[in-house]
Amino acid sequence: MSTLIPRSSFTLARISIISRPLICQACFHPHQLPIASGSRSISISARSRIQVDEPKKASLALRPEIRQQEKQSGNGKIVGSETKGAEGPHYQDQNHATTDILSNESSTGPWTMMNPIYTEQELDTIKIVTRTPETVADKAAHGTVKILRRAFDFLTGYKATPIPDEVLKQDPLPIQELRSKGLLLSHHKWLFRFILLESIAGVPGMVGGTLRHLRSIRLLRRDGGWIHTLLEEAENERMHLLTFMTIAQPSIFTRALVLGAQGIFYNAFFLTYLFSPKTAHRFVGALEEEAVRTYTHCIEDMENGLIPEWEEVPAPRIAIDYWRLPLNSKLIDVIRVVRADEATHRFVNHSLANLDQKKDFNPFALVEADAKTRGEKWGFTRKESSDFAQEQQLKLMKASQCQHEQGQLRIKQH
Amino acid sequence: MSTLIPRSSFTLARISIISRPLICQACFHPHQLPIASGSRSISISARSRIQVDEPKKASLALRPEIRQQEKQSGNGKIVGSETKGAEGPHYQDQNHATTDILSNESSTGPWTMMNPIYTEQELDTIKIVTRTPETVADKAAHGTVKILRRAFDFLTGYKATPIPDEVLKQDPLPIQELRSKGLLLSHHKWLFRFILLESIAGVPGMVGGTLRHLRSIRLLRRDGGWIHTLLEEAENERMHLLTFMTIAQPSIFTRALVLGAQGIFYNAFFLTYLFSPKTAHRFVGALEEEAVRTYTHCIEDMENGLIPEWEEVPAPRIAIDYWRLPLNSKLIDVIRVVRADEATHRFVNHSLANLDQKKDFNPFALVEADAKTRGEKWGFTRKESSDFAQEQQLKLMKASQCQHEQGQLRIKQH
Repeated sequence: MSTLIPRSSFTLARISIISRPLICQACFHPHQLPIASGSRSISISARSRIQVDEPKKASLALRPEIRQQEKQSGNGKIVGSETKGAEGPHYQDQNHATTDILSNESSTGPWTMMNPIYTEQELDTIKIVTRTPETVADKAAHGTVKILRRAFDFLTGYKATPIPDEVLKQDPLPIQELRSKGLLLSHHKWLFRFILLESIAGVPGMVGGTLRHLRSIRLLRRDGGWIHTLLEEAENERMHLLTFMTIAQPSIFTRALVLGAQGIFYNAFFLTYLFSPKTAHRFVGALEEEAVRTYTHCIEDMENGLIPEWEEVPAPRIAIDYWRLPLNSKLIDVIRVVRADEATHRFVNHSLANLDQKKDFNPFALVEADAKTRGEKWGFTRKESSDFAQEQQLKLMKASQCQHEQGQLRIKQH
Repeated sequence: MSTLIPRSSFTLARISIISRPLICQACFHPHQLPIASGSRSISISARSRIQVDEPKKASLALRPEIRQQEKQSGNGKIVGSETKGAEGPHYQDQNHATTDILSNESSTGPWTMMNPIYTEQELDTIKIVTRTPETVADKAAHGTVKILRRAFDFLTGYKATPIPDEVLKQDPLPIQELRSKGLLLSHHKWLFRFILLESIAGVPGMVGGTLRHLRSIRLLRRDGGWIHTLLEEAENERMHLLTFMTIAQPSIFTRALVLGAQGIFYNAFFLTYLFSPKTAHRFVGALEEEAVRTYTHCIEDMENGLIPEWEEVPAPRIAIDYWRLPLNSKLIDVIRVVRADEATHRFVNHSLANLDQKKDFNPFALVEADAKTRGEKWGFTRKESSDFAQEQQLKLMKASQCQHEQGQLRIKQH
């Protein structure tokens, strides 16, 4: 990987300079030579100078000597490459490079707080997948989630057992009977679950983002593009919560529960992430496995007509705006995209948990894996992450090159 | 303000639906009527239904009753408007609306972690401005900064007194003499200052963002677009630090100092923000006043040839990428943009400190004030913020309308 040019490729910067009039003005200030070729040679010489003269003076994600050792020991290959360049492309490059070239519509650079926009086909690919824990930490994380889940199910009177087909064949469906028997959740109980779930789910991303940010400025090291992906996750979960808020205003009891839960969970997760980020990411991965399971169950109930109260409920305005849903979407469409988001977090966190938290770059800093992969796979192994990152970098470099040549052409034409 | 449509306007969503093929595919799923007018009427009816039947069921930045009181008491006008829509335009809307229409090139939506790109003219407008504290909290904030500044100056042997002109006329300049007399900082001492300053400056934005995020998901309320602006600030300061890192690797002593400083400052600021966010923002505003003062002094020294070691130092790659600098930029260009960023934080934090932290929306969630305003004004009063937010919303609505009509045209043509 380390032979590749950095996330923010040399040409990328040039493209935006060439193609954006504002920057072009800025180009011609006293310090600059009028010809691009001149400026290029200068930049290269400057670069080599920094690398040759002061090899130890550059602060990278890793100290140079450690990186050297990594290189020599072939097995300890580091995910992602780095140089003195920025950690990712500028969001203003996206319409030049990412969107045009990469097929994945939800692709985004680390400067952007993205939220995915899904096709119907993509939404259908989301599956319930579980990862079997390997290490002791894995088992601890999965175990904790299992315990929390059981307590949560008990609290909300939730039963995972599906309604048998012969019952579903009945017309009208004996909904009240099933609910009174505790075999079926009412729409109120579903919302109560969602709200509790999302109010917790908004915490980890923010904690991870904060701790990696503080680490970067405290140890004077690069972050490697993790921060934004984690902050995106936090923001995304918060939007889920705000979406459900528009459907039902929770009771004082719910609010109190949310308040208490956050008070405990924020601090517990903060300490976990501080001491073992791997375990923390694994925990989130396992938690999101459960989230996908819950939302899938709810969607099935709705499709089976078991939540009649929600059949005609339109998608809240905030959801239409956030996920770019068609204006006449229904609540079920919203729950389907929410499930897809949770699958993304499941995939991302399991993948991050497999990485070296100190050395590896975030493989999704440049481009997200496509929705199908996120929906069907529990995550990437470290090897897969490494290959994915490399692939995306090559794509972007190719894109940049094309853009650069087009830019040159435009210049010639003028 | 509350008569305006929300930040993420009705039409904005439609534009992206109309203009993006991916969404168009997604549009035609079973639930939807084929004609736009049909879907529109549905959406409107859905909306009014929510507003009429369940006025208390929507979770907004304010509880409905409080907002009512606010409306009735004319004086307590709230900055920014809100509906059930998202808190800002989607970053994918930007090339449709923001960039095309609004003149300010550095404008950005809250879904984007922006970093400003400046013209030479804009960089020249940055001034040292100070705000005279009014409330007791103001005085406490400014006082704390003054004390910290004195201690910091003493620690780094910094003197604010400029070098007299007769000395500057001498050729060659008696640089070594001035430095030995402690009248002039060496390039090493300047970097030491910058690194300490930036390692501290990266904390407040992240703390503010975290606490407002937690508040939003804890109290189940909208944030009002503050979070992203605060996270942007944190990210921006971190990039400053990483930029200076590429020039000099700090000593163990510096690293230890940074470590300790963060340990104390993070917790102190966290508690301050928890109990009085107004004071916290005021403190950052005052801190950034000093940052602009320091960077201006350094730039003047460089222009007077008092830091010869830096004259030929090229801009680090990371800075060229991040601020989209010309490829042959020098270190002084980097320090100029860094100063402009600090002026932005000064402006934004002083403005936010004037707002009602619980009720008001972030006036800069949609669009930043232009670089000149940020460079010359200490900040906006609450009234100015309100007017600015309204102005930007109107602009965006207009832009959306144009885009919408163009979209309709395109549809007719096909």
